[in-house]
Amino acid sequence: MEIPSLDEHAHAEALAQLDGLVKPVGALGRLEELAAWLCAVHGTVPPRPLDDVRVVVFAGDHGVSVSGAVSAYPRHLTAAMVRVFLAGESGVNVLAREVGAHVRVLDIAVDDPLDDVPDEVRSRKIRRGSGSIDVADAVTGDEAQRAFDAGVAAADAEIDDGADLLIPGDMGIGNTTIASALVAAVLGLPADDVVGTGTGVDDEGRARKVAVLERALTRRAMHGPMDTLASVGSACAAATAGFLVRAAARRVPVVLDGVFPCAAAVLAREIAPGAERWWVAGHRSTEPAQAFALKALGLDPILDLGLRLGEGSGAVQAVPLLRGARAVLSDMGRLADLG
Amino acid sequence: MEIPSLDEHAHAEALAQLDGLVKPVGALGRLEELAAWLCAVHGTVPPRPLDDVRVVVFAGDHGVSVSGAVSAYPRHLTAAMVRVFLAGESGVNVLAREVGAHVRVLDIAVDDPLDDVPDEVRSRKIRRGSGSIDVADAVTGDEAQRAFDAGVAAADAEIDDGADLLIPGDMGIGNTTIASALVAAVLGLPADDVVGTGTGVDDEGRARKVAVLERALTRRAMHGPMDTLASVGSACAAATAGFLVRAAARRVPVVLDGVFPCAAAVLAREIAPGAERWWVAGHRSTEPAQAFALKALGLDPILDLGLRLGEGSGAVQAVPLLRGARAVLSDMGRLADLG
Repeated sequence: MEIPSLDEHAHAEALAQLDGLVKPVGALGRLEELAAWLCAVHGTVPPRPLDDVRVVVFAGDHGVSVSGAVSAYPRHLTAAMVRVFLAGESGVNVLAREVGAHVRVLDIAVDDPLDDVPDEVRSRKIRRGSGSIDVADAVTGDEAQRAFDAGVAAADAEIDDGADLLIPGDMGIGNTTIASALVAAVLGLPADDVVGTGTGVDDEGRARKVAVLERALTRRAMHGPMDTLASVGSACAAATAGFLVRAAARRVPVVLDGVFPCAAAVLAREIAPGAERWWVAGHRSTEPAQAFALKALGLDPILDLGLRLGEGSGAVQAVPLLRGARAVLSDMGRLADLG
Repeated sequence: MEIPSLDEHAHAEALAQLDGLVKPVGALGRLEELAAWLCAVHGTVPPRPLDDVRVVVFAGDHGVSVSGAVSAYPRHLTAAMVRVFLAGESGVNVLAREVGAHVRVLDIAVDDPLDDVPDEVRSRKIRRGSGSIDVADAVTGDEAQRAFDAGVAAADAEIDDGADLLIPGDMGIGNTTIASALVAAVLGLPADDVVGTGTGVDDEGRARKVAVLERALTRRAMHGPMDTLASVGSACAAATAGFLVRAAARRVPVVLDGVFPCAAAVLAREIAPGAERWWVAGHRSTEPAQAFALKALGLDPILDLGLRLGEGSGAVQAVPLLRGARAVLSDMGRLADLG
């Protein structure tokens, strides 16, 4: 997929206009940077409103949750959480409502038939659970490509329906382990550097995660980003990468959330260099792998609230700040008009 | 004024309920802390909505802006900015509209008759400009008390009118110098430690600010917080302190903004110990005096966006996060209800 460039002219014009507003030069700090970025994304000064914001949560089980006992939570929770999303009672549902954002959950690889949920939730399902990365590939090469394409289609569906801003969310027991493995694989980092405590494991649990990662990363050679997604990733990671690449290709800005979407973003950038210019980081995770991923992507999170929930819950809270950044350029008075 | 205690029972009940929501324990980080604080403030679980949010901007000129040349901007800008506030085109006007907050500007000590603005804007005016603190007291003891009372009355007016949450804003050339002087005076810090670059002065400008502070802090002994406000403060600082104390006395939560309201908060806590429990810090300023003030108050800012505008512009952006914290307790599903 071809990734367009941002509009450098609009970016420069935004910076010039920001300097002429009724405030000291640079006094709105990060907001000015975000305002100029939105102008570069939209190719207009001021940028367009960000009214239609959509979170797409990619739900699935990750293989290591069985063999490695890496999570503080049992695997059947993933399916139960899909129903919580559909009831509108998850963390991201609640926080998205506060900012007027829409949330959709997609079953990509939940290890449950989920017969009771609407067909559209399961329409992009790749398989029941991804493989245990310490002993086998997470998915086949074909499944990785199909999952990536499912993410592309999910982005297309939201954009065709009018999305101004996209947020990929993640739900799945074991997902911080997968995210850490992907970051370590792409950036060539030791397992012990990238592994955190996830949903809240103890020192022994963390040691098990490190051991899982070491086995996964040395199990076989990986050849390029799609093969890495197949080997130590998951169907959800591939789908998230496809979603991110497609948003950039279609010039729709993205707010990244915690460690899982940021790990997928590192892979997405390998697949489509330059796509990262269309993304901002919404929230700093407590997971070390996210810090490595963000550094590689050249992104600095807007918020740092100590969240470690995933789901897109941190990213949605950055939406009012992006809207504020836009409003500054759109609505503030100019120094030249002062009496 | 008597400062009530927070409701410790509601706080404990909130923490217990948070642990039972559909998320790992503690996974919502800072939001959980804010949710529990709001419960302690309101004495109910969940807390009440924060629909009616009001910013009151205390506008005035600060004496040092004449004698010490401490600002990058001319003094007549304060009066011009009052008109920008009334036109709804200041930074905080624009950012407040994004979160549905109301902004009122009060002329406390602008060095201009402001004959053209509505009477209600000038109804609490104490004097035209505060004195130059390096050579004289900022205001008389009587003026400091009247300014404090004006802040009390301003809080009463908003609370009587239905405010759920208050934000004191500041506008005035020279105000970071005054804020630094107050923090240094109360906490016993050297001028060089607390002085920053304000609206954007260079090294020489900063050196002039340090010299002004050194003269101001050694000019005469100060006896208690009201005398400190009179000696090295300003009418606006005293008004802000009164506003903060009254909000706490009437159990209305406050979001503090940058260095000026935080400096006033340090004085307000001297006047009414315990009042600080009713406040949260909305935004980290780039001014070193704010960091000292926050440490003394035991507060940690919610946002850190590199803003240095004042006006309440950082604090209003924390409002959606407080609303999100409330919504989490109010609307998220419970683990016990999972299938």
